[in-house]
Amino acid sequence: MSPHAGPELLGIDWGTSNRRAWWLGRDGAVLAEHSDAQGLLASQGRFEAAFDALLKAGPALPPATPVLMSGMVGAASGWVEAPYLAASEPLTQLARRLCAVPAAGPRCFIVPGICFTGADGRVDVMRGEETQLLGALALGHGDGWYLLPGTHSKWVQLLEGRVADLATYMTGELFALLTSHGTLASVAGPRDTNDDEQPQAFARGVAAAARSGLSNALFGCRAQVVAGRMPAGEARSHLSGLLIGAEWHDVVRRAGRAPQQVTVIGAAALAARHALVAEALGCRITTLDSRSVQLAALQALRAHL
Amino acid sequence: MSPHAGPELLGIDWGTSNRRAWWLGRDGAVLAEHSDAQGLLASQGRFEAAFDALLKAGPALPPATPVLMSGMVGAASGWVEAPYLAASEPLTQLARRLCAVPAAGPRCFIVPGICFTGADGRVDVMRGEETQLLGALALGHGDGWYLLPGTHSKWVQLLEGRVADLATYMTGELFALLTSHGTLASVAGPRDTNDDEQPQAFARGVAAAARSGLSNALFGCRAQVVAGRMPAGEARSHLSGLLIGAEWHDVVRRAGRAPQQVTVIGAAALAARHALVAEALGCRITTLDSRSVQLAALQALRAHL
Repeated sequence: MSPHAGPELLGIDWGTSNRRAWWLGRDGAVLAEHSDAQGLLASQGRFEAAFDALLKAGPALPPATPVLMSGMVGAASGWVEAPYLAASEPLTQLARRLCAVPAAGPRCFIVPGICFTGADGRVDVMRGEETQLLGALALGHGDGWYLLPGTHSKWVQLLEGRVADLATYMTGELFALLTSHGTLASVAGPRDTNDDEQPQAFARGVAAAARSGLSNALFGCRAQVVAGRMPAGEARSHLSGLLIGAEWHDVVRRAGRAPQQVTVIGAAALAARHALVAEALGCRITTLDSRSVQLAALQALRAHL
Repeated sequence: MSPHAGPELLGIDWGTSNRRAWWLGRDGAVLAEHSDAQGLLASQGRFEAAFDALLKAGPALPPATPVLMSGMVGAASGWVEAPYLAASEPLTQLARRLCAVPAAGPRCFIVPGICFTGADGRVDVMRGEETQLLGALALGHGDGWYLLPGTHSKWVQLLEGRVADLATYMTGELFALLTSHGTLASVAGPRDTNDDEQPQAFARGVAAAARSGLSNALFGCRAQVVAGRMPAGEARSHLSGLLIGAEWHDVVRRAGRAPQQVTVIGAAALAARHALVAEALGCRITTLDSRSVQLAALQALRAHL
């Protein structure tokens, strides 16, 4: 292997539950990649050991190779707290606010998260998604609505390269909680084949979320089953429709109308569910792969190291 | 003890987690009462044994003494399924739809629950609260809005003695879930003295619930803490305000305006929180004790046995 073929950058997306890493060579070529479940929860505060273990999963890094980390690793409960960038600053400022992690090496940094304060007093935060948004911009995508679905579904409006709006919905976490514990779990709990992909039950959930507040609509999911109006096998898809529908209805309510176009950064299955809602609202969806935007962000940021 | 001093009726409110029982003598005098945590979950389907154990907690019942049960004991997962009364029927019809439980004795019955279907397609149900509402009517309270707060907070509009509207909010269950598991538990989890009774944090929660859908407002509770905008010690009261506020905002949204008067049947502490929201909306609150309405319902129903 010639010296030029070795890693020139290690990028790590280090979240609460999982982490992903990419060893990049010249011109951003991916020399190796790795993912595991050694997120913050698994690391239990032993970040140096968790980092050292990760290094062993890929090609050896030459001395002083830069490392760029993003995600919850920069939270107060993370390795080093990286102070939030204010949403009023352009995303390109992230490169100038990298937070050093000396324990990891002389050129190791964490990308800060972003804190948003709305004119109405709402406060919202992200850690990790700002890096993906920066990657989307680097790939040539511009202002507009972005949606990063998942455990915490993030709706972001970019204007002039800044976060002009940010709203997080606890969709994935609520789905997991409600299907594991309590009243809804008894009807929506056991996961059978196909229970999660019933488009009609999903659509009825989306419609129910428009009629009622979420706390009422959730009980309605159970009420329909115990009253014999919905088979229990449809409850999971209905619940998914309720939670995803609640996101869209809230975004539409606050904006006064549905966005015309939304760029979804995330897994295909979740993007497909959002596309069902978007279509009914006359909204176009573009989907970006989260790996591609992460790699683009790493390339954009390395120029500043 | 003269034969006339013995129990003439045993009333049981048998719910998912708890049960309460009253041994009533002539003229409805309470000869004994008992409460325990032997609800449906604890009984695990062994209802006869659980019933026999309850009988031992009070004075012996003469042969063929009537027993009236209400609550989840009449659900599909209960002792005997008591088919729902349709909300279009007057509450007084409950007395004519009592469901026999031969295994408990020749004059043992379960009061049916009520199933409501809204013009907009919403389906909602109650089991146990219909008996309390019947008791409120028996005590001379009339049509109007009733609120039975708790694990599942029930908003009921009575018109001409019928349930004209019913909306259940999963307030208590969501509060318990979210403070025990996941993202919010890490800021709102450990319960310290006074954390649950901070009126200003509660009021800010109520206001936040008006601005955003619940799934977003819940994340906002955490975001404010991690962004340093709210002490973690205020998170529980804020969360309580979010969940209780979400009830009121949804009721107001669907009705087009706040109710002028609401009769709250339930515990004083919860009623006091609702009173804070009601006052801000110009709504008068009357509070009824759940024991009193339960006893009044038993008296009203025994006349039909």
